[in-house]
Amino acid sequence: MDMLKQRIREEATVVSAGVLKLDSLLNHGVDPVLTMELGKEFARRFAERPITKVITIESSGIPVAFATALTLGVPLVFARRKKTLLNEPDAYCERVPSFTKGIVTDLLVSRHLLGPEDSVLFIDDIIANGDAARGLLKIIEQSGARLEGIGIVLEKSFQAGGKALRELGFQVESLVKIASLEGNEITFAED
Amino acid sequence: MDMLKQRIREEATVVSAGVLKLDSLLNHGVDPVLTMELGKEFARRFAERPITKVITIESSGIPVAFATALTLGVPLVFARRKKTLLNEPDAYCERVPSFTKGIVTDLLVSRHLLGPEDSVLFIDDIIANGDAARGLLKIIEQSGARLEGIGIVLEKSFQAGGKALRELGFQVESLVKIASLEGNEITFAED
Repeated sequence: MDMLKQRIREEATVVSAGVLKLDSLLNHGVDPVLTMELGKEFARRFAERPITKVITIESSGIPVAFATALTLGVPLVFARRKKTLLNEPDAYCERVPSFTKGIVTDLLVSRHLLGPEDSVLFIDDIIANGDAARGLLKIIEQSGARLEGIGIVLEKSFQAGGKALRELGFQVESLVKIASLEGNEITFAED
Repeated sequence: MDMLKQRIREEATVVSAGVLKLDSLLNHGVDPVLTMELGKEFARRFAERPITKVITIESSGIPVAFATALTLGVPLVFARRKKTLLNEPDAYCERVPSFTKGIVTDLLVSRHLLGPEDSVLFIDDIIANGDAARGLLKIIEQSGARLEGIGIVLEKSFQAGGKALRELGFQVESLVKIASLEGNEITFAED
């Protein structure tokens, strides 16, 4: 995805060690035309899979997951980050830490939106340590659905998340991999 | 939007007084094809306006706001709900109560994503009391941008939010209005 690399070069800033700010592109401001291209690319890479639903985690993953679901012609489900302390008997829940926010959140997916009849594609904007991804994988496992693959817009390949998911045997497709943010420089990994 | 009314009749449930659960349709599960139709309808209703950006609030508003922005050919910005207690000098912030969650949250939009050069269309999934909408209006005002109109998928017209925004002089377009949820029945308002 040279188009995406170009935009990252032009618009991203390195905030601090390990944290990349992409807020005009991906997780605050969104370019719908670029996002549709990312969604089409994911649809192409997972075209052989019998996907029934695209799943993501609110909020930043929603636009690109929507674009992917629209292209594949399947529904989208986004896991909610739980705000209340109430018990939720109708939902699958998992507690996950957040690398960038330094807090713990609970992910939640309603039981009626995911079940053993589903083959899901998990789409997200960024993977770093993969904590949120692992939480969502546990939810998918709880539901009895089959995980067909994982599509990530931007993988920080100097952190362990993407590698760990591949070692579990999943097809993980990252559109762009960043090998390093050392010295406030963005260094892309070779494809 | 008869198509939308039909889907609400089939899939929505009344949870408690005033609260409608639409989570297979709008704010947890999303039908991308229906969502694109909603986005096209908003684009049609605001076609005369010189819109430079679509703005919404994370998370439930993002899919329909994305569909609207894609149709209009302009960028999307989604206001973040602030999770940290850190001061954010580079952002416009407003504190708003939440009707359904019973908590207070801070809305945040980065200064570099909204400014006096912008004419914005605010799109959201649901309006009840309009607290979040008023918070976003203050952010738009702070930024110097011009608010061209407000598009809401579902207005609870028995609550004051939509009416209050119209009284401020804004063009408010609701695709569906619900007049009452009395007796766990969904009663649509006449168009």
